[in-house]
Amino acid sequence: MPTYELFYWPSIQGRGELVRLALEEAGAHYVDVARTRRGMAAMMKHLGGAARSLTPFAPPFLKSGSLVIAQTANILMYLGERHGLAPKSDAGRFGANQLGVTVADFYAEVHDTHHPVASHLYYEDQKAEAKRRAAAFIAQRMPKFLGYFEGVLGKNGGRFMIGSRLSYVDLSMFQILAGLDYAFPRAMKRVGNRYKGLRVLHDRVADRPRIAAYVASARRVPFNEDGVFRHYPELDRPR
Amino acid sequence: MPTYELFYWPSIQGRGELVRLALEEAGAHYVDVARTRRGMAAMMKHLGGAARSLTPFAPPFLKSGSLVIAQTANILMYLGERHGLAPKSDAGRFGANQLGVTVADFYAEVHDTHHPVASHLYYEDQKAEAKRRAAAFIAQRMPKFLGYFEGVLGKNGGRFMIGSRLSYVDLSMFQILAGLDYAFPRAMKRVGNRYKGLRVLHDRVADRPRIAAYVASARRVPFNEDGVFRHYPELDRPR
Repeated sequence: MPTYELFYWPSIQGRGELVRLALEEAGAHYVDVARTRRGMAAMMKHLGGAARSLTPFAPPFLKSGSLVIAQTANILMYLGERHGLAPKSDAGRFGANQLGVTVADFYAEVHDTHHPVASHLYYEDQKAEAKRRAAAFIAQRMPKFLGYFEGVLGKNGGRFMIGSRLSYVDLSMFQILAGLDYAFPRAMKRVGNRYKGLRVLHDRVADRPRIAAYVASARRVPFNEDGVFRHYPELDRPR
Repeated sequence: MPTYELFYWPSIQGRGELVRLALEEAGAHYVDVARTRRGMAAMMKHLGGAARSLTPFAPPFLKSGSLVIAQTANILMYLGERHGLAPKSDAGRFGANQLGVTVADFYAEVHDTHHPVASHLYYEDQKAEAKRRAAAFIAQRMPKFLGYFEGVLGKNGGRFMIGSRLSYVDLSMFQILAGLDYAFPRAMKRVGNRYKGLRVLHDRVADRPRIAAYVASARRVPFNEDGVFRHYPELDRPR
């Protein structure tokens, strides 16, 4: 029996990737259920409310014994407590969760650059709106979030986002920079050295043995145009 | 000295209202700082990162002794632990937070019905996009969220969203229904009796002595067109 069962869409990184990174860094024994035979059916059953536990609103969710926990920031808080991936003090755990929820908010804004009208409509049916929203994202929201995270990192001494050792928030920063590099390469190139602390943190996380092994493995789904971070050149900064 | 200082925009309910409701139901001693003399300056100083504690990304945030906690769902979890407004078991506290984060996600979607392109632009400059997004919200997202919350409530026995006594999640359900009634009266009238459990819960929360006293007081900012729930008739269901 694995320690955990992770339920998430099998063909994208999406929000589930933040959980996968935490599980990998923890060296936890987990199964990525929807990527196994009949795993999708098991996931849909949970989402339909078949289990006795609290029904998830959406993937990702994590099964740990009889517990089923949903919402990315919430799952990360749970794993952080159990695997030493978050500080233990009140200031530390509520601080880490504050940043975890802020990361989730940022993900929603990245998602809405390509789906500003509705998730259930095709990108092609909201391209005009997406162009406006993506331009505002690159001009206003991306700098606001990255500047905020850079400031938090600097204020904490520059090595970790919170506390005095690696936490799930640092892993999420790695993923945010990787995702933005993929989705908005021109905008990120233009940013240059402005978020140097985050870039150094990204590189340090990438070099951690378990993360490096994971990223090089088939367990890491490549970025693609079905996930949260999508590379649509027309939404990137104009040349 | 009050037990808590709440920092939030003084002229709207917004996300801060979910915190105000929890503080009021707890009978906590708090100051709504930005509504006091020089309170706005104090709030902006915090947001600028002047304090030693972790900087908030945005209001609301709560000062409790030397702790400064931001992000609505995170603040509610903190207050829930301290005031018996959340279950204590792992299933209960992570379950409550799962629902708290889902409420925060719903708030972001309600906000984006009137600001689908960018928060920093006027509504008037994104009215066309708002009409499309609001229509999709009323047709797809509102029923998805309300149906989910109704299902969670029913599965838990119908009296409380989680656990066996009132939690901050129940208070948030009260606020969501009140907000939707204000913003989308035609759509909510059309919904009729479909979310009966939530309606009964809303009414029961409204009747609680501390909530009833609060809602009748000057401490409750009225709904208005600067908050998250805005009544723009052109975004409501067509007649």
